[in-house]
Amino acid sequence: MAHRVPVLAEKEKTRLALEALFSPESVAVVGASGNPEKLGHVVLKNIVEGGYQGQVYPVNPLADVVLGLRCYPSVSAVPGPVDVAVVVVPRDAVAEVIQDCVDKAVKAAVVITAGFREIGPEGVKAEKEIVRIAKEGGLRLLGPNCLGHIDTHSRLNATFAAGMPLTGNISFISQSGALFSAILDMADSERVGFAKFVSLGNKADINEIDLLDSWREDELSNVVIAYLEGISEGHRFIAVARDLTKAKPLIVLKSGVTSEGSRAVSSHTGTLAGSDAAYSAAFKQTGAIRVNTLETMFDFAIAFAYQPLPKGKRLAIVTNAGGPGIMATDACGKAGVDLAHFQPGTIDALRSKLPPTASVYNPVDVIGDAGPERYQVAIEAVLKDANVDGLLVLLTPQRLTDAVRTANVVINAAKKTRKTVLTSFMGTASVKAGVDRLREAKIPNYPFPEQGVAAFSAMNQQREWMLRPGEKVKSFRVNRAAVREVIKRVRDSGRDTLGDIEAREVVEAYGLRPPRSALARSTDEAVALAQEIGLPVAMKIVSPDILHKSDVGGVKLGVSTIDEVRAADQAIMRNARRYAPGARLWGVALQEMVLPGKETIVGVSLDPQFGHLLAFGLGGIYVEVLKDIAFRVAPITPREADQMVKEIRSYLLLKGVRREKPADVDAIVDALLRVSQLVTDFPEIIEMDINPLVVHEEGQGATAVDVRIGLSTVAA
Amino acid sequence: MAHRVPVLAEKEKTRLALEALFSPESVAVVGASGNPEKLGHVVLKNIVEGGYQGQVYPVNPLADVVLGLRCYPSVSAVPGPVDVAVVVVPRDAVAEVIQDCVDKAVKAAVVITAGFREIGPEGVKAEKEIVRIAKEGGLRLLGPNCLGHIDTHSRLNATFAAGMPLTGNISFISQSGALFSAILDMADSERVGFAKFVSLGNKADINEIDLLDSWREDELSNVVIAYLEGISEGHRFIAVARDLTKAKPLIVLKSGVTSEGSRAVSSHTGTLAGSDAAYSAAFKQTGAIRVNTLETMFDFAIAFAYQPLPKGKRLAIVTNAGGPGIMATDACGKAGVDLAHFQPGTIDALRSKLPPTASVYNPVDVIGDAGPERYQVAIEAVLKDANVDGLLVLLTPQRLTDAVRTANVVINAAKKTRKTVLTSFMGTASVKAGVDRLREAKIPNYPFPEQGVAAFSAMNQQREWMLRPGEKVKSFRVNRAAVREVIKRVRDSGRDTLGDIEAREVVEAYGLRPPRSALARSTDEAVALAQEIGLPVAMKIVSPDILHKSDVGGVKLGVSTIDEVRAADQAIMRNARRYAPGARLWGVALQEMVLPGKETIVGVSLDPQFGHLLAFGLGGIYVEVLKDIAFRVAPITPREADQMVKEIRSYLLLKGVRREKPADVDAIVDALLRVSQLVTDFPEIIEMDINPLVVHEEGQGATAVDVRIGLSTVAA
Repeated sequence: MAHRVPVLAEKEKTRLALEALFSPESVAVVGASGNPEKLGHVVLKNIVEGGYQGQVYPVNPLADVVLGLRCYPSVSAVPGPVDVAVVVVPRDAVAEVIQDCVDKAVKAAVVITAGFREIGPEGVKAEKEIVRIAKEGGLRLLGPNCLGHIDTHSRLNATFAAGMPLTGNISFISQSGALFSAILDMADSERVGFAKFVSLGNKADINEIDLLDSWREDELSNVVIAYLEGISEGHRFIAVARDLTKAKPLIVLKSGVTSEGSRAVSSHTGTLAGSDAAYSAAFKQTGAIRVNTLETMFDFAIAFAYQPLPKGKRLAIVTNAGGPGIMATDACGKAGVDLAHFQPGTIDALRSKLPPTASVYNPVDVIGDAGPERYQVAIEAVLKDANVDGLLVLLTPQRLTDAVRTANVVINAAKKTRKTVLTSFMGTASVKAGVDRLREAKIPNYPFPEQGVAAFSAMNQQREWMLRPGEKVKSFRVNRAAVREVIKRVRDSGRDTLGDIEAREVVEAYGLRPPRSALARSTDEAVALAQEIGLPVAMKIVSPDILHKSDVGGVKLGVSTIDEVRAADQAIMRNARRYAPGARLWGVALQEMVLPGKETIVGVSLDPQFGHLLAFGLGGIYVEVLKDIAFRVAPITPREADQMVKEIRSYLLLKGVRREKPADVDAIVDALLRVSQLVTDFPEIIEMDINPLVVHEEGQGATAVDVRIGLSTVAA
Repeated sequence: MAHRVPVLAEKEKTRLALEALFSPESVAVVGASGNPEKLGHVVLKNIVEGGYQGQVYPVNPLADVVLGLRCYPSVSAVPGPVDVAVVVVPRDAVAEVIQDCVDKAVKAAVVITAGFREIGPEGVKAEKEIVRIAKEGGLRLLGPNCLGHIDTHSRLNATFAAGMPLTGNISFISQSGALFSAILDMADSERVGFAKFVSLGNKADINEIDLLDSWREDELSNVVIAYLEGISEGHRFIAVARDLTKAKPLIVLKSGVTSEGSRAVSSHTGTLAGSDAAYSAAFKQTGAIRVNTLETMFDFAIAFAYQPLPKGKRLAIVTNAGGPGIMATDACGKAGVDLAHFQPGTIDALRSKLPPTASVYNPVDVIGDAGPERYQVAIEAVLKDANVDGLLVLLTPQRLTDAVRTANVVINAAKKTRKTVLTSFMGTASVKAGVDRLREAKIPNYPFPEQGVAAFSAMNQQREWMLRPGEKVKSFRVNRAAVREVIKRVRDSGRDTLGDIEAREVVEAYGLRPPRSALARSTDEAVALAQEIGLPVAMKIVSPDILHKSDVGGVKLGVSTIDEVRAADQAIMRNARRYAPGARLWGVALQEMVLPGKETIVGVSLDPQFGHLLAFGLGGIYVEVLKDIAFRVAPITPREADQMVKEIRSYLLLKGVRREKPADVDAIVDALLRVSQLVTDFPEIIEMDINPLVVHEEGQGATAVDVRIGLSTVAA
């Protein structure tokens, strides 16, 4: 596999470039300025004042000294090597600077300058030009039109943002410069520390996937959070994110709606895939934790950053008031968190040490007049309990409440346990000093109890994901050659849609089971075939020009005698000639009547970002009216196929309601995997519907009754 | 209607007592103490220091002077009249104090003392005793086991909480004392003002409904928020809350799960009604705005308190960054808020005054380097647009951002418009001064854009509710006497379940249409009846002792010849004798075969708080497997019945998918209203299922094929 060598070399080059980006030995600021109004001044100042220890070179042909540093007329004029160039020159000067960087063998350039793709065609052109120069010269680019980036460990603040976050283990990717600033500001007030902070800008070169890829091994980044408006390389994202999330949590806020117009949606299920379906599927498949608000992103990030993952989802709650305890209990129900059932010893201990009005069951209510001592009794008892995986301490400010000393109790208890400890000290002024103590000691505190429960739930999701054994895409033995031949035949005849029989040949070659069927070119042939297939049969016109066969009277079902076969054949041909004049008629297909079963739909559509999107649902109204469909990006693993089947609401119908026998779910999983393999092997298949895939009773398999396949208009 | 007079007098008395509670001319603190450790000290101090202007009387037999005030040995020893007594004596002394208050003609007592119902049987007894004394003496009680109450306008702080909220127009009811404290604390930090603040405690007498009732006319309370764990008088809550919400918003956070055990759930749909179904229905029927978190409660409260209701749901967004604009747009989609389409003039104005890179469509992006002037241009232009009902201004801290001056721009623009203006200045330290300005000027500011969108959506929900014309429960002409007679007959025979034919009689008397049917006591009679009803018929065993007729071979469907009738009759009787030996067999019922249609279920179950809960859904798997059911508390109005039908997901199936004709939705609405009237007229009906109610094509009505009715075990 000699062709893989350059790929690996490419990866290694990226790794080195990103390493340089975050921990350079030298940085040039191109466009550095002595004028405090200019970005070139702010960026240089941030680098110098942030405590960066490497070499800093201002570059500006019009100055000799900037901020007390010797200034150079160009990057190539710098005497020593330059690892990173931060570019803040006017747009039309950027290309020249990039060329200069290439000549100087700079490893990465951060282009802060705006005025590129975001402003229209003229900017697109300028952007393409700098990318071309960089690519040809082996230089990696962050931006353009970005705020820059920060590494708190190398103390590099290559941005024009105000201030630098505290050092921590969260790394942040933002596709919005404004959110970058807002989060920076909030993080500072909340005393939350970060490792790396990256503004992506236009993503002309380095994108979120490059960063995720390099951060997998980054021991300083334990939690990755990302605000994204789009993902350009869907398949690579899935591969890289799936890898990252096995090592550390990835929390994603994906906003924005992709334009419906950009999607190839002629397949049946394809039209039902909302623009978010592929993103939603991709996040599930990669183990990314998707959040809907920045607040939740923060809430989860500090839980992951500060606390160990729980070993299970059994949460103990200790509170000094019933109300918040109930609210937390409600939240557990909604978030799939279990209220821990305490062991008898725990209950006895609580009963003997707490006042009689206290509640010794979960949630433990230490009652409104509880001081720190009583909290301590309860917290120590429940943390010792083997049935408890995590603890949420609730506190409301009451007359005898001492938030600071109670915080100390929590902090000390957390030090002695490896279980997850979260708090919700409610209120503001009265609990502030206590909350500050918790923050310093890295106990996540949430203003409201349900936020703590949600964070605990997210931690469990991550744990379950990490524990799940790895799984490969299954490869069936199939007849690729047969499919290749059919596709060639269709292409050669100038079509991009397969006929009935062609589509059946394709799925049959991939191990799906269409009903027994054959084409009759005459009435006599129909009679002979009917005898061969066995009565009753279904009969349908076959024509490349007739899409809706029923509409032209081209379908007869349940034809059950030889006389009826003869009559049906003649009627179908007569109808087709009459209602579809000029259509090419290839004959009449006879098909066995299918065993009874549940009608399901398996579909494939093409997503512009993620490629083949598989869909599964129950036939008829379930998919069309109730939109009860599961989506996944192909190729899928057996577990993903299984999840698809089980995630639809109407799955219960497949299991069998009342006295019905369950449907053959394994056969559905098998069909999904085979279709996944088919479209992966033949990317030119851009749409496909098996509708219905009739699923018989358990052990009886499934029949692909009707199959439609469409090809891309240009051969792949 | 002479009997209504005492009810009105009762209401008036409550009104006066509550008026006294919040604006008393004199207050006695019973249990006042000079010891700062005691609650009796804290409460008295809060009253005195809160600025209350009326007479304050400490009461304590062991002291002469407390906090410099003359102290009295008992309430009756106080020289002048006492409007309100705040009771903080030990539990066992409370009853005597209450008697003393009654003797003194005190109007309302606030019992802060704990140790009542919340501690078990002994406390229940003590609580009953004080309620008895108060009731007999015409004294109204708040509590016991409460934190007290606050009125910021009369400056009365009759609590032991720390501090008093700012004066404002939000009134708050809390069933949790702890949340009362927490909210008080948060309100203070956020500078949010309140009118009244009530801790309900055990609700032994005064409950949330009394307060809601009196606050309808309270001009100082423009927004009511409530944290509730349960509602005891369901029907009264619905009546009172429905009235209140026509005048002002009611925001409810209902937590806690009622015990499943307390519910009468033998009916089919009853078992499917989660414990929250009745609350959820009741909130819909009263126009209360339900929230799931305290944070959202706060978010909505300040929007209602500070800003005028919008005239419609078209929101304009002005932002200095794309990211937050996209997030707000996403949130609009989820919350049912429309992005305003600007008039051409607005777009022209924006285009001529904003830089070329700005986005002049909604969301208006004034770009990262926008100063206050550019915000002003955009804000003024969009607020002038007749297509805009409300404005959300987003601001992220960027290099040239001036949060304070931008806040001033927003404040000035808000002064000149009657449209709703909300803001989301994101970040913390960098925007704090601006956010403080907004708060002072009563512009709600939210840390994240989606909170602003959600608040705007809630305001629209309130506006739509207030605009909805009033509607009465419809009264059909029915045959009440017939139903009374059937119920008497069933009761007389010692049963609490109606037989088939009895149940049919009942629904027929209320104008529903069961299939034509008659009871055959012999095979010959069966033959005669079959000829009368018309073949084919369904035949079923009739016995008060056989619940599951099919299980004993007691059902034959589609019996279509006279010979078959004869054979079926004999087979059914033989099967019944064999498989249900000893059962009383009344004969075989013959029933017309029903017109085709959609199977639906209409059900009634009894909720412990709200009484009759109506349910509607599609038959078979929709109700049972997919839990697609709508609930409402009876009696319902025509609009509520119509909403029930339309709110289920599977409503689309009733409208007809593909080429099906739509089902007769009017007939469903009619059936729901008639069932609602039936159970309201006969409260002894505690469960009922029409399953199926077969709904025919539009205009063809519906047939109540199978009806089950259960009565309360004791005659109502």
